[in-house]
Amino acid sequence: MALIASSQGRLKPELGQPQMFVFAADHGVARAGVSAYPCEVTGQMVLNFAAGGAAINVLCRAQGMALTVVDAGVDWAGPPPGVVALSQGRGTANFLEAPAMSGAACRRAQRAGQQLIRALPRTDRLIGFGEMGIGNTTSAAAVLAALLGLFPAVIVGRGTGVDDAGLARKRAAIRSGLARHAEADPMAALGGFEMAMMAGAMIQAARQRRLVVVDGFVATAAWAWAERREPRLRAHSIFAHASAERAHGRVLARLGVTPLLDLGMRLGEGSGAALAIPMVQAAAALLREMATFDRAGVSRA
Amino acid sequence: MALIASSQGRLKPELGQPQMFVFAADHGVARAGVSAYPCEVTGQMVLNFAAGGAAINVLCRAQGMALTVVDAGVDWAGPPPGVVALSQGRGTANFLEAPAMSGAACRRAQRAGQQLIRALPRTDRLIGFGEMGIGNTTSAAAVLAALLGLFPAVIVGRGTGVDDAGLARKRAAIRSGLARHAEADPMAALGGFEMAMMAGAMIQAARQRRLVVVDGFVATAAWAWAERREPRLRAHSIFAHASAERAHGRVLARLGVTPLLDLGMRLGEGSGAALAIPMVQAAAALLREMATFDRAGVSRA
Repeated sequence: MALIASSQGRLKPELGQPQMFVFAADHGVARAGVSAYPCEVTGQMVLNFAAGGAAINVLCRAQGMALTVVDAGVDWAGPPPGVVALSQGRGTANFLEAPAMSGAACRRAQRAGQQLIRALPRTDRLIGFGEMGIGNTTSAAAVLAALLGLFPAVIVGRGTGVDDAGLARKRAAIRSGLARHAEADPMAALGGFEMAMMAGAMIQAARQRRLVVVDGFVATAAWAWAERREPRLRAHSIFAHASAERAHGRVLARLGVTPLLDLGMRLGEGSGAALAIPMVQAAAALLREMATFDRAGVSRA
Repeated sequence: MALIASSQGRLKPELGQPQMFVFAADHGVARAGVSAYPCEVTGQMVLNFAAGGAAINVLCRAQGMALTVVDAGVDWAGPPPGVVALSQGRGTANFLEAPAMSGAACRRAQRAGQQLIRALPRTDRLIGFGEMGIGNTTSAAAVLAALLGLFPAVIVGRGTGVDDAGLARKRAAIRSGLARHAEADPMAALGGFEMAMMAGAMIQAARQRRLVVVDGFVATAAWAWAERREPRLRAHSIFAHASAERAHGRVLARLGVTPLLDLGMRLGEGSGAALAIPMVQAAAALLREMATFDRAGVSRA
């Protein structure tokens, strides 16, 4: 509750219309057999978001949240109506062969994310961050391993449910990627368009004193990278949940943050952030409206 | 999610208008110096509920929940307008001197609670249970110790914030109460009017296949007693949170249930249940509205 008030610098915080962003992109490293699903599922799920049938649509409707779905770099000809077209390319390069993106592309993605937040009404102060991208828990684990100096074996989980052989491939891919790109910026070398864009959006949100609600493992990787660039981000960030992805809880502890929920969810799409947002709204309402003991005439001990 | 569907026996559960009940009563054992606050705070807080200034009012307004405040046995001349008058007496007797209530009074309180739930529209299927009563964590700990065979030292916490001397008095009171009323029904001998009424309401809700959202330590004590009488209650119950009250988490584990939230709250009033209810609504919305992978045209692994 203290963070909600201090983020805005006022004791009675107003949050306005909650905004949920889902950033989608494809990942070259998915071709290394690190995911339980084929690459085309990224685009299919974004179509499902556009059609209103996914979990995040249901949660946003049920809870009165605005939803913006962003094509940050899906591997398709172009997004359907209703999806914001900010594609930085048809998926990243496979980081086993080359940097995932150039430094210039990484900066472009970041700026696009900042622009999205700048365009929001100033009164909308509560922003959830989710993502979709087959292969992106591999990229996120690589970015986090590089940023936090954690061993791949510690930080790699099953994502959407890869089997033992896939898990071994995922670990091997991250080890190779870390070795290959040891000197590079982890986001450009190992990350993804959705993560870079999300990081830019988070930084902009913090600079405008909006609250950033971080969803799962991939959003946490974007946050960890963004927070190195903009340390003020921490004072405006709420971590929605510790997901079922192995190591998410460990990474949150290493980052020194405490998640609101721990429900063993592994759905992605921003669904954890969507569940946490009503709790943040409730806390803000308590700060605004609750009577003090004095005003209510309650006897002291 | 499975419980929400199975409680109603339908795959697409409809929950209707969420209903929050707060049962208030005074406790004779409060005169033994077991609370950080004087007894009159019970009535003052109920006046605050009636005036709309308490945390539970804010949460219900913010989240579109109906709130019913029930005088189950507050020690005052009578409740203000807006509070349901079902008083079973001006507080219970001090269980150090006599049974808290007679067996007949305990059954009357239970029936009154059942009646309250029977009067609700059948379509309102999501019911939160909270309470207010100075001294009631002492009564609740005594009831739970008797039901579960736990030692007072294990189960007694600081309630609203009693000091070390008060905590020692609380433990001593529970030990004496357990010894004095070893053969009696724990609810009548050691409990409270709000707990007995809440237990009746929970039982009725389960019989009508409504979902019971259990708030904190005191509501958990009412639930544990009710579940002995109506084992079907378990299949319709959601535990909102593990409160900061020492031993609440331990009691939940002993009862074999898992709380949704663990936020270190100790506010009472049903506030934990009020925070959990939007999550239950969100889960029900997911069950009703989310597209399957087949319907959304998503490729299989």
